[in-house]
Amino acid sequence: MNWEDIARELAYTTDSKIVLLVCDGLGGLPVGGRTELEAARKPNLDEVARLGACGVTDPVFMGITPGSGPAHLALFGYDPLRYQLGRGILEALGSGVEVGRNDVVARGNFATLKGGLVVDRRAGRIPTTENERLCAMINAGLPKQEGAEIALTPGKEHRFVARFRAEGLSDVLSDADPQKDGKPRVQAAALKPKAGRTAVIINRFLDELTALLKDEPKANTALLRGFSKFPSIPHLAELYKLRPAAIANYPMYKGLAKLLGMDVLDVGAETPDLFDALEREYKNHDFFYVHFKRTDAAGEDGNFERKVAAIEEIDRFIPRLLALKPDVLVITSDHSTPALLRGHSWHPNPFVLVSPNAQPDGVKTLTEIECAGGTLGRFRSIYAMPLMLAHALKLKKFGA
Amino acid sequence: MNWEDIARELAYTTDSKIVLLVCDGLGGLPVGGRTELEAARKPNLDEVARLGACGVTDPVFMGITPGSGPAHLALFGYDPLRYQLGRGILEALGSGVEVGRNDVVARGNFATLKGGLVVDRRAGRIPTTENERLCAMINAGLPKQEGAEIALTPGKEHRFVARFRAEGLSDVLSDADPQKDGKPRVQAAALKPKAGRTAVIINRFLDELTALLKDEPKANTALLRGFSKFPSIPHLAELYKLRPAAIANYPMYKGLAKLLGMDVLDVGAETPDLFDALEREYKNHDFFYVHFKRTDAAGEDGNFERKVAAIEEIDRFIPRLLALKPDVLVITSDHSTPALLRGHSWHPNPFVLVSPNAQPDGVKTLTEIECAGGTLGRFRSIYAMPLMLAHALKLKKFGA
Repeated sequence: MNWEDIARELAYTTDSKIVLLVCDGLGGLPVGGRTELEAARKPNLDEVARLGACGVTDPVFMGITPGSGPAHLALFGYDPLRYQLGRGILEALGSGVEVGRNDVVARGNFATLKGGLVVDRRAGRIPTTENERLCAMINAGLPKQEGAEIALTPGKEHRFVARFRAEGLSDVLSDADPQKDGKPRVQAAALKPKAGRTAVIINRFLDELTALLKDEPKANTALLRGFSKFPSIPHLAELYKLRPAAIANYPMYKGLAKLLGMDVLDVGAETPDLFDALEREYKNHDFFYVHFKRTDAAGEDGNFERKVAAIEEIDRFIPRLLALKPDVLVITSDHSTPALLRGHSWHPNPFVLVSPNAQPDGVKTLTEIECAGGTLGRFRSIYAMPLMLAHALKLKKFGA
Repeated sequence: MNWEDIARELAYTTDSKIVLLVCDGLGGLPVGGRTELEAARKPNLDEVARLGACGVTDPVFMGITPGSGPAHLALFGYDPLRYQLGRGILEALGSGVEVGRNDVVARGNFATLKGGLVVDRRAGRIPTTENERLCAMINAGLPKQEGAEIALTPGKEHRFVARFRAEGLSDVLSDADPQKDGKPRVQAAALKPKAGRTAVIINRFLDELTALLKDEPKANTALLRGFSKFPSIPHLAELYKLRPAAIANYPMYKGLAKLLGMDVLDVGAETPDLFDALEREYKNHDFFYVHFKRTDAAGEDGNFERKVAAIEEIDRFIPRLLALKPDVLVITSDHSTPALLRGHSWHPNPFVLVSPNAQPDGVKTLTEIECAGGTLGRFRSIYAMPLMLAHALKLKKFGA
């Protein structure tokens, strides 16, 4: 029996409310002797640490740096070693592409073909505006293939997302990508017979696209990889009997929340919009996932000062969370993003849980080192969900 | 390989002695700023914490509130996610019913039948004395069915345990219970062909019982659920090469110990009886499970002061434990029972292990927060058994 089986058996609906604030990439490493959390003035986050039970979490296991997909799945109680989301679906969600149950999506690159060889898999990193023009041209010129609707969504520079929409498509396909410069174009191959028709559609589309782009100086072909369909993953309502809402202003996190069956609320682009939405919808749901992106974005840019500022920004909204008096409030992150490393890292996430049913501890500030000494100890992120449900008194007893 | 496989390979018999004192439901939550353990005067338990290595344990995993069955199984090294004991067998053990290898047992309710419908699944919660009269009447009137011996043991109010004894019975049966008031009686159904004869026996018995009770004002039928046989579970002697003794004065815990092949010692109903038995039998066994119930009983009643008093009571017996100088002494609990929650909870258990082979730590009092900071950290209860055996030098090296 695993957690999912147990959750289906033990979880039940109550009036209690859970708020999970994910400060993306919150944990860090010292620069000049202090981590971002240690350098920030954040009286409200520290007050939460004083009020709650603290610990640190490993998204996958010790030493593993997760992408946003696995890190978030773990926080919602899905073992990231069991559920692996295809790159195509994550890229599509991150680009705000609407993905239906029948669609196959893939990550695309514009590339340069010369003398029958792919000489630059990134088409000299064409400007994003060029990319947008090409995608519009292709969408207008090649919208259908054997009855399948095809749509490209431009990303940054040479990157795009391709969506193939028809009944009966399959994603059991190899990449249409030579992987290295200086090799011929490669067709997508059906890895199982059921994907044969999909491979034909995709390869004809790529040939016609290449014909259409033949006069472009750099972007005169395209590569596709990471074919994936909408994953079959149980919803939070089904597993936990929750009415969950997602409050996020980046498409990637909205898309992930949609995958898990959350109601994705309409939210503006700024931080106050998150809390306006939470207050507005507070009576209509019992689980709120609130996503704050700026801590991660600053960490990815290697900008220590901007990450400190992002922590200080979110700190000012904490009183609005506490004023709602949720039965369980958790503040944590999906993964660490130390500015020092300019990217995601394997370091554990500070975690604090405030509830009338939580055992207190002596932690007084929300930092990596203080949380590591809290009563919750060090644990895998997949236990965040059982802990939240338990403290909200939404789980029955296991066995007699 | 799991722990059981490893134990079979590595465990061996020595003269060293292990004493495991389970203070049932020991951990709690603050009321007026202090937990039960923080409020109690318990100089001897604190001395044990000073002498030993401390930690906290999760019986199943974080957030899961266990019943007594899974919580105890875990303490003895059996993964509670693998071994799940039926409600019937636990109810039978808890009622002191002697269950043999061929018996099927079930939880029973007296119920009220009116116009062909079960209108009250609890027969208006008839007095226990009424229940006792009815069970005696049925045992005298309906002792056999197709050669199967049948015996009812009364519990509190409307509850009883039914035991069916014959060769070849099966417990793969659905409940004979409509689950809701206002529905007709439901027969037990064989979920596999091998249970067909057992279903016939049980359904005929329920029909005859209903005929026998037809003039009773409230308790004129009965429902049965949780059919279960004696589970097949390896014994402690087999896994760990121990000669284990159980010292408990409640039938539920004696029954569990019997399931695991422990010698269940004769013990009176009072706390000194536990320690008298331990001293008397100390030379005859090498593993002693001592069960103290009053901490849990007070917690279940929501009586903070009485739980504090129970902690102070058990504290006075600790010098008798230490005087025996066991090679390993562990004091912990199966699960937490905060008076604040009036029931079992998911909070981890304080755990202290005293042994000449234990690493010391700085913990000075036996409380939830202090133990959480001990050198043993936070771990699943199934590691209690490997830890005890290791410190008693009863485990060989794994691998070369």
